[in-house]
Amino acid sequence: MKQFINTRETLVTEAIDGMLRTAGGRLARLNGYPHIKVVIRTDWDKSKVALVSGGGSGHEPCHAGFVGQGMLTAAVCGEVFASPSVDAVLAGILAVTGKAGCLLIVKNYTGDRLNFGLAAERARAQGLKVSMVIVDDDVALPDLPQARGVAGTLFVHKIAGALAEQGKDLDTVSEAAKRVVDGAVSIGMSLDTCTIPGSPKENRIEPGKAELGLGIHGEAGIEQVDFSTARDAMDMVIDRLSPTIGSEPLAALLNNLGGSTPLEMAVLEQELLRSRIGGQIRWLIGPAPMMTSLDMQGFSVSLYPATMADEAALLAPVEPWAWPGCQPVGDISVVALPDGLTPIQPIPSSNDSMRSFVERCCRTLTDAEAKLNALDAKSGDGDTGSTLATASRALINALDRFPLADQTQMFRAIGLELGQTMGGSSGVLLAIFFTAAGDASASGKDTVGSLKAGLDRIQQVGGAQSGDRTMIDALLPALDNLHLGIEAAAKAARKGADDTAEITRARAGRASYLSEESLAGHNDPGAEAVALLFEKLAE
Amino acid sequence: MKQFINTRETLVTEAIDGMLRTAGGRLARLNGYPHIKVVIRTDWDKSKVALVSGGGSGHEPCHAGFVGQGMLTAAVCGEVFASPSVDAVLAGILAVTGKAGCLLIVKNYTGDRLNFGLAAERARAQGLKVSMVIVDDDVALPDLPQARGVAGTLFVHKIAGALAEQGKDLDTVSEAAKRVVDGAVSIGMSLDTCTIPGSPKENRIEPGKAELGLGIHGEAGIEQVDFSTARDAMDMVIDRLSPTIGSEPLAALLNNLGGSTPLEMAVLEQELLRSRIGGQIRWLIGPAPMMTSLDMQGFSVSLYPATMADEAALLAPVEPWAWPGCQPVGDISVVALPDGLTPIQPIPSSNDSMRSFVERCCRTLTDAEAKLNALDAKSGDGDTGSTLATASRALINALDRFPLADQTQMFRAIGLELGQTMGGSSGVLLAIFFTAAGDASASGKDTVGSLKAGLDRIQQVGGAQSGDRTMIDALLPALDNLHLGIEAAAKAARKGADDTAEITRARAGRASYLSEESLAGHNDPGAEAVALLFEKLAE
Repeated sequence: MKQFINTRETLVTEAIDGMLRTAGGRLARLNGYPHIKVVIRTDWDKSKVALVSGGGSGHEPCHAGFVGQGMLTAAVCGEVFASPSVDAVLAGILAVTGKAGCLLIVKNYTGDRLNFGLAAERARAQGLKVSMVIVDDDVALPDLPQARGVAGTLFVHKIAGALAEQGKDLDTVSEAAKRVVDGAVSIGMSLDTCTIPGSPKENRIEPGKAELGLGIHGEAGIEQVDFSTARDAMDMVIDRLSPTIGSEPLAALLNNLGGSTPLEMAVLEQELLRSRIGGQIRWLIGPAPMMTSLDMQGFSVSLYPATMADEAALLAPVEPWAWPGCQPVGDISVVALPDGLTPIQPIPSSNDSMRSFVERCCRTLTDAEAKLNALDAKSGDGDTGSTLATASRALINALDRFPLADQTQMFRAIGLELGQTMGGSSGVLLAIFFTAAGDASASGKDTVGSLKAGLDRIQQVGGAQSGDRTMIDALLPALDNLHLGIEAAAKAARKGADDTAEITRARAGRASYLSEESLAGHNDPGAEAVALLFEKLAE
Repeated sequence: MKQFINTRETLVTEAIDGMLRTAGGRLARLNGYPHIKVVIRTDWDKSKVALVSGGGSGHEPCHAGFVGQGMLTAAVCGEVFASPSVDAVLAGILAVTGKAGCLLIVKNYTGDRLNFGLAAERARAQGLKVSMVIVDDDVALPDLPQARGVAGTLFVHKIAGALAEQGKDLDTVSEAAKRVVDGAVSIGMSLDTCTIPGSPKENRIEPGKAELGLGIHGEAGIEQVDFSTARDAMDMVIDRLSPTIGSEPLAALLNNLGGSTPLEMAVLEQELLRSRIGGQIRWLIGPAPMMTSLDMQGFSVSLYPATMADEAALLAPVEPWAWPGCQPVGDISVVALPDGLTPIQPIPSSNDSMRSFVERCCRTLTDAEAKLNALDAKSGDGDTGSTLATASRALINALDRFPLADQTQMFRAIGLELGQTMGGSSGVLLAIFFTAAGDASASGKDTVGSLKAGLDRIQQVGGAQSGDRTMIDALLPALDNLHLGIEAAAKAARKGADDTAEITRARAGRASYLSEESLAGHNDPGAEAVALLFEKLAE
């Protein structure tokens, strides 16, 4: 399997070291690599109850990502999916435990229970006050007395963490943790298995299937179910959770098991909140990766009937960035669309010379339809002529409602019409050209100056410069020479258009994707259209 | 492909709605679904410069996840990997822009440039001050004038966002944004392509290969390279970036393209910081998913030579949770291992009756080795006898250095010895049993009380209760009857052990994984060992 790791043996220590490089001095590790991998707070004076959690790695940000003010005091990290040793846990306990004592928060796996359990004994034998809670929130197997500990562990970290931070004593913190363990329920669903570093991936979930009630160590889910939509998936999860909860208001935790995208998680969030228990959910933590299973494309939902005191603890600010916050669940706030989206139609006005000028331009382009299409077929999809002809016909049809007597408004009206009828990149660019020309005209620029302002803007927006084999290669010299008369402009446009036949390395627009051979010897159709237009006007 | 979505058509709107449910009222959307998908701040009074960004969806948390105080004012969301329409962008601009004006931050893709560009024109035609920056930080194609906009966009969001929040005017904010665009460089690498909702996955990256210089829309990378380790991968990325930077101190942004695990990203963080440009990196943003490409298993590195003013802007607190913070890069803080890890050996003392008692117990177990192994072979791997015999021999060998004259210290010494020599779950549980018994003895409990305290503790840690087919089924009745004399205890232990033959549904320990047939009619070997021990002592 391909993964961004160096070796399996150094994966966890390198990852911890990476994290510590940007911990801003707030976190440290104990000097016990490779066997003892313990992350601790550096701002810790042992005056309060310490919270120590941990277990196998592969669940990041659990647990090291939650070490910091208001949550854990130390995280004891094992290798991927393997419990840390007794010595590692003991080192973690001894490093952070003072007279106020220490609470161990342990997920219900045999290895973790035993290693944390023996470490606790050893610490007690040295006179330390150590208590331990076993988190068993997974309801996947309702008749199994040894339920697994999964993402509901975060409720314990956060609520016990807030109480410890407040300076509550060990009994109070431990009692609260036990209460949370008793109340928290979780279940997960996945569409794919996780990829264990150094091992081939097990493809055990067929297309159209999902696993329900999965663990966080790559073990198979309790059952395979048919998978269709996010809504059905969430309903199945809720079906398993709802018999285990009462009617109290709930805090929910929506956990990304690692490989689900933020888009998927946000859809699942919406489905959770509109499920049949959605109305009970007052607070939501996530969606976010909190207790992952490497890259597993799955999610888990944890529920906890939080009291008002619990809510305060869940809301208390904490230092670790990995904690996504606990947010109140509310309605979707929808704001009316702003005014101004529907463009104000200009007031029609008459001007015969303007009308005939526009008609003449448009006819030039409709007449050139076949020629421009043929030219475009050499280097593109052969529709430049038709695109321009269609737009021209639309303009002619619109002339009766155009403000022909007002140049500023005319530019804007042409821009609006082209933006709505022409389509494609060229339609947008011409719309920008005329709209920007209208703005310049409104601010007092003359016709040439306004058109130049339009050109500047499409260069900025479109990114094309002279020599990029676009219509700019004809339009720019034409406008630069327009003060010398229309003939000079037409001549410059023609030269510019013809020169594009020599440009075989297009740098912008669609032609930039084409080979040199397909471009050599043919004028760019956009530049050609500009040249034809100016030539016609010069006649 | 399997994804947690309902339909492709509703994916983006459902995801936005999901996000808004827990925005705490700080975010809203415009009432323009499905075509106009715009997320805006609700606490916005238009008194400052508005920041509008957006583009295709599939890059979450970009852009909607960065709307909030100190960053974006509005995010205009297209469908997955598709630019939003001109109307959608215009709606976003009009909804948030007041007299102070608006800055559009646009990634350099033709569709985005054109649609944002025309929307900007339309807004200007309505009298609004609108400026626009095009982010083109991708250095994958050094000779392409139209470099793509990728994760470096976040530098622009954050720095311009901080200035806008401070109340700087549009020119100042725009100038700063342009400066950031000019300075920011990025490149990405991926081990796998992304999965576009509703489309089959393209498996174009072979085993052993990676793509370097990839875009964020599933387009192929600039080249396929050999992939071996995280270090080599980062070195290749740095090789492309380093010619584009000077020797100034840098802010770096380490972006998860979607499907890399936190473990991988932390290893890459470590490699980035120890690469040959690592010493220049003063600030790091991430690792975190910021500008993703759906579920792509890849990462990107963005660099920006931040001035002191930029640093202040990068560090300014912001509301959006998706911003992972900008952290100073420092050394790894390593703390010495605590005292107490190496257990203090008890002071040896003599007591002939204690010595002979322990020896007698141990011999009972070594004598029973073959019998217990045979019993265990019926329901396990046949080593219970050997495990206990090995531990017994170790205890006998240790007696010369044991504190035979002090019961409390004896319990602790036995616990320590078993924890170090016995191994396996049973070794840990017996170590806990004797260590906890020692604690109880130290606090004044008599022998029976101390042993009961040990039993309580292994029940708590191991999770087994009476009737779970473990040694507890013999040990618990034995200790309960010990006050009546050793014969009564032995009789109770024997009954308990024999009763385990009837327990065919084990609920704890290894036997819980076995079928009823393999358990029926055989005593649990652990319980049998306890019964044999008490029977021998009763002789």
